[in-house]
Amino acid sequence: MVLLNEAIGIVSKSVSVLKGEEQVALAESLDRVLAHDVVSDINMPPFRKTAVDGYACRAADLDSPLRVIEVIAAGTTPQRAITQGTCSKIMTGSPIPNGANCVIPVEDTKILPDGTISFTADKSKSNICELGEDIKIGESPLSKGTLIRPQHIAIMAALGCHSPIVLVRPKVSILPTGDELVEPTEIPHGSKIRNSNGHQLIAQVLSAGAIPIYHGIVADTEEVIEKAIARALTETDVVVLTGGVSMGDFDYVPRIMERLGVRILFDSIAVQPGRPTTFGVAGNKLIFGLPGNPVSSFIQFELLVKPSLLMMMRCNTPYAPIYRLPLANDYSRKRAERLGLFPIIVNANGEVEPLEYHGSAHIFALARANGIASIALGVNKMKKGELVDVRSI
Amino acid sequence: MVLLNEAIGIVSKSVSVLKGEEQVALAESLDRVLAHDVVSDINMPPFRKTAVDGYACRAADLDSPLRVIEVIAAGTTPQRAITQGTCSKIMTGSPIPNGANCVIPVEDTKILPDGTISFTADKSKSNICELGEDIKIGESPLSKGTLIRPQHIAIMAALGCHSPIVLVRPKVSILPTGDELVEPTEIPHGSKIRNSNGHQLIAQVLSAGAIPIYHGIVADTEEVIEKAIARALTETDVVVLTGGVSMGDFDYVPRIMERLGVRILFDSIAVQPGRPTTFGVAGNKLIFGLPGNPVSSFIQFELLVKPSLLMMMRCNTPYAPIYRLPLANDYSRKRAERLGLFPIIVNANGEVEPLEYHGSAHIFALARANGIASIALGVNKMKKGELVDVRSI
Repeated sequence: MVLLNEAIGIVSKSVSVLKGEEQVALAESLDRVLAHDVVSDINMPPFRKTAVDGYACRAADLDSPLRVIEVIAAGTTPQRAITQGTCSKIMTGSPIPNGANCVIPVEDTKILPDGTISFTADKSKSNICELGEDIKIGESPLSKGTLIRPQHIAIMAALGCHSPIVLVRPKVSILPTGDELVEPTEIPHGSKIRNSNGHQLIAQVLSAGAIPIYHGIVADTEEVIEKAIARALTETDVVVLTGGVSMGDFDYVPRIMERLGVRILFDSIAVQPGRPTTFGVAGNKLIFGLPGNPVSSFIQFELLVKPSLLMMMRCNTPYAPIYRLPLANDYSRKRAERLGLFPIIVNANGEVEPLEYHGSAHIFALARANGIASIALGVNKMKKGELVDVRSI
Repeated sequence: MVLLNEAIGIVSKSVSVLKGEEQVALAESLDRVLAHDVVSDINMPPFRKTAVDGYACRAADLDSPLRVIEVIAAGTTPQRAITQGTCSKIMTGSPIPNGANCVIPVEDTKILPDGTISFTADKSKSNICELGEDIKIGESPLSKGTLIRPQHIAIMAALGCHSPIVLVRPKVSILPTGDELVEPTEIPHGSKIRNSNGHQLIAQVLSAGAIPIYHGIVADTEEVIEKAIARALTETDVVVLTGGVSMGDFDYVPRIMERLGVRILFDSIAVQPGRPTTFGVAGNKLIFGLPGNPVSSFIQFELLVKPSLLMMMRCNTPYAPIYRLPLANDYSRKRAERLGLFPIIVNANGEVEPLEYHGSAHIFALARANGIASIALGVNKMKKGELVDVRSI
C-alpha cells in the first residue's frame, strides 16, 4: 500500500513522452499540447500606437486648445507630424504620429465652437503603447508543453503560427471486466448491473484529449482477460482495466499482468475510495487496474490516469489546480486510516458543501458535484470554515 | 454604462431557449446539455449486495470460526442460505445470501488449519448495500439542463439511457471588423496587425459547446458591415462582432445595429477591460459587440457570451464557479472607477499570483494564466492574504 502522493510520483516517473508530432489547423489545436515553443516573428505592438480613441498631441500643450490637423483611422499611416498647438484625431490601435507624446482620451475632451479641442480632465496618462512593449521579435511567449486553450489560440494567431505542431494523442484501451456487467442497451436481470465504468472512461479519456479504444466488456476468465490485455498492450499506449483488481477469488488481473511482463509498481493506495488500484509498466506502456466501483474508477482516473496522459503529450501543466476553500458545514467520517475524497459542490458563496454520498458505488452523488474535496489521512473531523483542498470536476 | 452584474442580468433575461433537440450516442453527449430528466428504470443496487470482498455471515456468529458453504462470484446468484456457524465467501458487488446480515472484509479474517474462517478485527460494519439505497425505480438523479460530463455518462449508462436526448447547439457568427486586420497566414506590414480575436472566438465558441460560423474579416465600411450583420442575424442564433464598438469615428457598428432593428440594451459596462461592450437583441437573436482588444474580447466572451450560449441550451449551470482565494502578493491599480479583471495564476499553495499585464491588448499575459481575478469598483488596493474572487480559465 502506497500513499496517494507516492502513487502519483510513481506514475509520473513511469511516463515516456510520445514521439509523434502532427501539424493541425488553428481551431483543431484546441485542447492539444504544443510540441515546440512559438517564437514571435514580429514586434508587438508592431509600431507605437494609441491605447484609446482620442487626440494625439504634445503633453506640454494640454493647457491650450488644439487644432486638429489629421484623422488617423486604424490601419492607416499618419501623414503629418504634430507641432506646438496641433493634434490629430486618432482611433484605438492606430500609429502615433511623429511629434506626439501623449493621446488624450476622447471622453476627456470637448470640441470648442471654432473646431479646436480642449482638454477637460486634470491629468492624463500617455496612453501610448511603445513598439515591442508586449513582445519583441525572437521572444517566445508560448512554451512547448502548453495545453492549448482559446487564449493561446489568440497568441498563436497574433504571431502567425497558423498551423501549430502538436504532440500526437495517446491511444487508451478501455477494458471493463466482470461477468456481472451488461451494456447500457440491456436490462440487467438477476445479479447483473449495467457497465457504467467503461462508458465513463471513454468520456474521461476524450476529456483528457486522448483517444479511447473501447474493447467492450471482457469476460471474467483468465484466458480472455490475458488475451485482451496482451492485445491492448500491443496496439495502444495505455491500458485501463476496471474491476478484477481487489481481493476476490476471481480477481486474476494482477497475476495476469505479471505473466505478461508487466512490472507492477503498486497494487493498492491509502486512499478512499480507490484503494484497490493497480499500476504497472511494460516497456513504455502504462497499465492501470482501476476499481470496479464507478466513483473510485472516476476519481482514480482523474488523479492518476489523466495526468499521465497529459504528460505523455509533454504537457507542462498535467495536474488540475487545487483550490483551498472553506467548508460550509462540519464534515466527519468514521475511519481515518486512508486519505479521503468526497464529492462536493462549491456554493454561490465560494463555500464547500459536501454532498450525500453512500460510498464508491454511489454514482448519483456525482450528479450535482462540481468538485472533489480531500481530507487527510489520520483526520476524521473538519469544522465549518476550515479550509479544504478541492479539485474541480 | 451599466455595472457588470447588471449587464449579466440583462443578457440572461434576453435569452430564449433553443427549440430543437437531438438524440446522440453516449460518447457524443459529452459537453452537451440534457433535454429531459433521466428517470431510473431500475433500483440501484438492484439487489442487496456486498460492498467488500469477504465472508457473508451472521453478526451474532463472529466470535467463533465459520464454515464456508459456498463461493459467490460477482454476477452469480447465491444458492445456499447462511445458518448459525456458516458463511459464504463473497466477491464485491455480489448478492447477499439469505440469512446473512453482515460481510466481514477478507482482510479482517484468517483461514484456520481446518479451513474455517476466523474473524480477526474488533468490530465490523455490515458492509451491505441495501436494495435501492442509491436510487429507486422512477427517481430522477439527473435533471434536464445538466451539462454532461464524464461522471454523468456513468449515471446514464447505469440507468440504461444509452442514447440521450440533448439540446441542439447554438450557431454563433463571428465577425471580426477592422481594416487594420490581416489573417494569421499573412505578415502584417505598416499599421496592420494580425486577427487574433476571430480565431480566439472560434475556439471559445467550441469550448462553450456551440457551433462557430466564421465569416472572415469584415471590411470596415458601413455597407459591408451592415450586410454581414444582416446575413448573420438571418442564418445564426448569436452574432459576435469584435472591434468597431468604441468611440472612434469609424465605429459605425452601434448605428448599424439600430438600423437593422437590433434593440441595444447596453453599450458600455463599468468593467476593465471591456468597457466598450455592446449588447442587443433582434427577436430571439442575440448580438454582442465585443471590444477589439483580444484580452477584453476574451474576458467579455467568458462573462457574457458563454453563459448565454449555455442558457440557450437550457443549461442549469451557465456560470463558471467563483473561488475566493488569498492573494500571494499585494495588488494595486491606479484607477478604481470600474470593476477590474486581471490575469492570475493559482500557485501550488492555492494562492493567487497576479501576472504581468500591460492592458487589454497584452494577450501574452494570458499565456500562463489559469484564472481571472476581480477587484471591486471603488477598490484600488488589496493586501497579500486578502481573499479575491477567481474564475478559472
